Amino acid sequence: MEDNMAMVIFQPSGRRGEVPKGITVIEASRLLGVDIEALCGEKKVCGKCTVRIEEGHFEKFNIESSMSHVSPWQEEEDKFINHERREKGFRLGCTAKVEGDILVFVPEESRAGKQVVSKAARDIHIDHNPAVKIYYVEVDTPTFHEPTADFERICRGLERDHGLKDLTADIYTLRQLPTALRDGNWSVTVSVWNDKEIIRFRPGKVEHAYGIAIDVGTTTVAAYFCDLTTMEVVDTVSMMNPQCKYGEDVMARITYHMTTPDGLERMSDDIIEGLNWLIDQAIQNTYPPKKKKKKKKGEEGPVEYIEVPEEGKTYLRLTRKDIEDITLGGNTAMHHILLKLNPEYVGLAPFPPVIHHSLDIKARDLGININPSSYIFVLPIEAGFVGADNVGVLIAEEPYKHEENSLIIDIGTNGELVLGNRHKLISSSCATGPALEGAQIAFGMRAAPGAIERIKIDPETKEVDYKVIGRDAWRQYSEPKDMKAKGICGSGILDLLAELYRSGIVVKSGAFNKEALKDHPRFRINPDNNQPEFVLAWAEESSIDKDIVVTQKDVRQIQLAKGALYAGCKLMVKRMGLEKVDTVKIAGAFGTHVDREKALIMGLFPDCEIEMIQSVGNAAGDGCRAALLNVQKRVESNWCSRNVEYIELTVEGNFQEEFMEAMQLPHMTDEFPHLKGIVSDEILNQ
Amino acid sequence: MEDNMAMVIFQPSGRRGEVPKGITVIEASRLLGVDIEALCGEKKVCGKCTVRIEEGHFEKFNIESSMSHVSPWQEEEDKFINHERREKGFRLGCTAKVEGDILVFVPEESRAGKQVVSKAARDIHIDHNPAVKIYYVEVDTPTFHEPTADFERICRGLERDHGLKDLTADIYTLRQLPTALRDGNWSVTVSVWNDKEIIRFRPGKVEHAYGIAIDVGTTTVAAYFCDLTTMEVVDTVSMMNPQCKYGEDVMARITYHMTTPDGLERMSDDIIEGLNWLIDQAIQNTYPPKKKKKKKKGEEGPVEYIEVPEEGKTYLRLTRKDIEDITLGGNTAMHHILLKLNPEYVGLAPFPPVIHHSLDIKARDLGININPSSYIFVLPIEAGFVGADNVGVLIAEEPYKHEENSLIIDIGTNGELVLGNRHKLISSSCATGPALEGAQIAFGMRAAPGAIERIKIDPETKEVDYKVIGRDAWRQYSEPKDMKAKGICGSGILDLLAELYRSGIVVKSGAFNKEALKDHPRFRINPDNNQPEFVLAWAEESSIDKDIVVTQKDVRQIQLAKGALYAGCKLMVKRMGLEKVDTVKIAGAFGTHVDREKALIMGLFPDCEIEMIQSVGNAAGDGCRAALLNVQKRVESNWCSRNVEYIELTVEGNFQEEFMEAMQLPHMTDEFPHLKGIVSDEILNQ
Repeated sequence: MEDNMAMVIFQPSGRRGEVPKGITVIEASRLLGVDIEALCGEKKVCGKCTVRIEEGHFEKFNIESSMSHVSPWQEEEDKFINHERREKGFRLGCTAKVEGDILVFVPEESRAGKQVVSKAARDIHIDHNPAVKIYYVEVDTPTFHEPTADFERICRGLERDHGLKDLTADIYTLRQLPTALRDGNWSVTVSVWNDKEIIRFRPGKVEHAYGIAIDVGTTTVAAYFCDLTTMEVVDTVSMMNPQCKYGEDVMARITYHMTTPDGLERMSDDIIEGLNWLIDQAIQNTYPPKKKKKKKKGEEGPVEYIEVPEEGKTYLRLTRKDIEDITLGGNTAMHHILLKLNPEYVGLAPFPPVIHHSLDIKARDLGININPSSYIFVLPIEAGFVGADNVGVLIAEEPYKHEENSLIIDIGTNGELVLGNRHKLISSSCATGPALEGAQIAFGMRAAPGAIERIKIDPETKEVDYKVIGRDAWRQYSEPKDMKAKGICGSGILDLLAELYRSGIVVKSGAFNKEALKDHPRFRINPDNNQPEFVLAWAEESSIDKDIVVTQKDVRQIQLAKGALYAGCKLMVKRMGLEKVDTVKIAGAFGTHVDREKALIMGLFPDCEIEMIQSVGNAAGDGCRAALLNVQKRVESNWCSRNVEYIELTVEGNFQEEFMEAMQLPHMTDEFPHLKGIVSDEILNQ
Repeated sequence: MEDNMAMVIFQPSGRRGEVPKGITVIEASRLLGVDIEALCGEKKVCGKCTVRIEEGHFEKFNIESSMSHVSPWQEEEDKFINHERREKGFRLGCTAKVEGDILVFVPEESRAGKQVVSKAARDIHIDHNPAVKIYYVEVDTPTFHEPTADFERICRGLERDHGLKDLTADIYTLRQLPTALRDGNWSVTVSVWNDKEIIRFRPGKVEHAYGIAIDVGTTTVAAYFCDLTTMEVVDTVSMMNPQCKYGEDVMARITYHMTTPDGLERMSDDIIEGLNWLIDQAIQNTYPPKKKKKKKKGEEGPVEYIEVPEEGKTYLRLTRKDIEDITLGGNTAMHHILLKLNPEYVGLAPFPPVIHHSLDIKARDLGININPSSYIFVLPIEAGFVGADNVGVLIAEEPYKHEENSLIIDIGTNGELVLGNRHKLISSSCATGPALEGAQIAFGMRAAPGAIERIKIDPETKEVDYKVIGRDAWRQYSEPKDMKAKGICGSGILDLLAELYRSGIVVKSGAFNKEALKDHPRFRINPDNNQPEFVLAWAEESSIDKDIVVTQKDVRQIQLAKGALYAGCKLMVKRMGLEKVDTVKIAGAFGTHVDREKALIMGLFPDCEIEMIQSVGNAAGDGCRAALLNVQKRVESNWCSRNVEYIELTVEGNFQEEFMEAMQLPHMTDEFPHLKGIVSDEILNQ
């Protein structure tokens, strides 16, 4: 870890990460996707953000108490925290600054319930009822009068002590039994799947079992590593989908399968290998870090590594076999490719998948290196373009439990839409393409250090301010050379079009307003391709030594994507016979960064009260986690997959018309009443 | 095939094999283990043995009609077969002689139901209800209005046409679906396991599915390859258990596991590899034989083989994947070792197995190369020494369905005993050791060409007559040099002790009657070890160029085995509170050759009416076959495994005493009333 960074862990969510020293606990919570209430806007006047800094006396993350890991007490805190609570470590989150590694406990009353950042786990309510539960049982030793077999002996004990009946065990599990039983001196801990099948025997009494919820995106794979007993998120890990090399989007992958003899096998093997790598990452984090052992002078031999535990920290030291359950979501193509199911017909009208229903697949049958008898629960599929990821979103957001009409937009490489309430739900998909994720954009890039993730443009001066990933301060507070900008990532692209429009740089048709920009230093015609372009960052602010620009073509690409989304939403609203929707929820890796105001400005979806627009982050992943920790959610997921009516938008009569119209930026005040005051009348009425 | 041999296939049993030309159809039926009624003792006067020779007009085994493959019509046949039936190919089995390859259909009324030979399939009654059934289904193509997934589409069709509900499919099966469905133009044949799980999709309409029932003995592995649709036994194949190299008997194998680090893996891998070889044998027999392709002069390159089909014969041309079900029996140690379950505790008092219940294991999980989603049904286990093989015997013989008391003796390397009726069944095992199978006997050998399998000794002259495997005529009808005797196999050993006793060569204690043998040319004291021995075959009759003898030590070994068996039977009869048993059934590879009279003479089991002694052949294998073809037998097998009370004989108070006494040959006329007339009074009263 660099000297200017500190490790912060938030409880009870378990979210953790490195943050720059000197930021407040609230700021750190945002970076790590933890929701802390802050009614006063961090002005130290509401006291809602009280947290407990568990520095020095917590189990897993002990630090020397002599070191001060938070900034000193401030006068303002006295008003909200009495002496007794101060002694216990309570502080205001907006006041206490991170000065070193800390563990922060966020009390129930300080937790907020809406905002989510990145693929970190969100605090959604899940009842504890995992598919894999552990039971301890003691039995008598066999005698000549009672020589019953080991398995039937254990089953009798499990029925007597825990009411479990008619259990089975596969051959891999059964092989563990005779030794586990004798090593445990005739007592064992049994992991039982769905109250039906024993999937693991461990000698003696063990208290914990672990599982992983994995959301396989076309671009990103994110996993929540959870304690099945406590429901705690032990770790979150993520990686690029290694299939990206075969094509950026779903259709490219399907085409790769159709044009390459062993294409499907290759792509499947790659993602499985990737998942095993991801699991290994999660496992490795339960061990102390390793350091190369220094050799004495003249000493030879292979390089050795030694563990360097952080002082006072306890390590779980898990093995792959300690992972006993996995839930897996992903869009239909990712689902099929991972499972080596022919994805060809998913790409051909009318796009029938191979199967809708969820699957329980033995880990060993997929080549996933965890407890071999464990099952991988694969979430069900709604339709060819509305996959298991969308089912995940549904069971996380539960629109079917509410009276209000929700429009849920899951924006990835493909846009998936669900609209409805407890009476009816319809779903659809629209080909947003990868533009919103940064592909097909001149300076588009993935969300990595140097990517512009936030943009503001002054309507008067048309000067640009922005923020890059990996650097906390905005451009206006930084030295140009410190910015090291490289390109624009998804969230930056969304900001971009909204800001270009609001500041009058582009007009409602998406064309650059050449008149208004006349002689503006940032606007020019590129002599190489004769295209207009607008400079976002000058070469001196970049790490690539050239101006970072947005071109007219880029704007068109973004318009195509936003148009597809908007037209889809509008047709669905019409189909449901609604005038407007009550809430809009934006999910997806993209959704985690979205600025709801800007999404409204650029017209991603029909008008809505701005307070009713929510970012629900990686809801697909949250759904996988819900299914991991509560087996009822699996039942619910199958209900969803067959009871949400899929609408194929492209065959609706007026789709093309709506789509063309939706490419325009919002301007009719009637249709977008909530834009009034956010965007100037001049622009809305242009 | 040699010129003097002909291939005979019996229907409906499907048993087949080569027989010497010139023998009658009835004689051929005996060699191949088919039961044809012959009340008059083949005197051509009862007409019960009428069969239909299907030469020339049968499906699988066509021969040129111009060739005569049976001997000409005889006058005696006119009495029983009218002209019309004669035209259809009916003949008397005792009259028609095999002159070439034929297929013989045995009508229901001509079938007898008792005798069995070797490991060929016996005609036991089995209701047709296999675990794997095939269903044909046609479905509509998907449309935008009905884009349901392939799997749910097929399931809907299966429910509509066949009433099947809630079917699942594993990932291996599911992968076949999209292609099979489109190759079959939206029609498929579906193999369904237990009305629960689809295990195979094939395009279009297919009529047959196949399965194999395998009995894994300590020494021999025998398999029945069956058509699951017609119940026909397509083929029987067998092999040595490749684990024999690790030890002759069960305890030796367990010891090998305990003393060799990867002993269990090695033994398991060997038997699995063996089973795959056996399956390949069965598969290969469904193709025409191959011949090396002759090369032209000067031609080079690798050796090529070409198929040489027998004219008119049709071949099934199956692949490994066409085998969709397997049932597997074996004693507890073979069961555990094959499944890589630690067999250590099965060899240690009180001998608890790892599991009693039957197992359904995916073929791929055992490394068995058949349809990968198919299940191997492993029969359940009664106790440490009464295994799945005995459960097989029980479901084949069904003593629990009868009022009479049956004693079922399964003689292999270990003796397994079941006694009882529909009210109560008890089982036990006794360590007969391998002597009865030819091991630990000076000239003992396995049942292979040259092995003495039948012995008769003249009580007057004490001259020996015998028969060897691979040669039809007895010694007295042969030239000495033609006998080529090599040793004695299991069935010969059983004959041996009975004949030695009946002819007065050994007395009731088992000692050679030196007085009676004085100066007899066949009796002598071996100068090398100073042991008495008796010559069975002179060096000139042997292919090993030395006298084949039985030694005093050999007799003692056989006595130990028969004593263990007899004592076990006696203690069980006592335990059940019986005076005598109604029937004795002898099962096991050994049982297939047993001469019931001789078994009674040597005192293998308590006295019984000789007519009530039955040889039931490879009843364990028949039980596996019953479980293959009728899923109800699987339910029955689990009932058996938990409702037959296991008695540990060695802990019964007077076991040792009974055992010592049982070593003696039967002599008390009170205890063996049925020996009267079979053995002379002089000997019984000695």
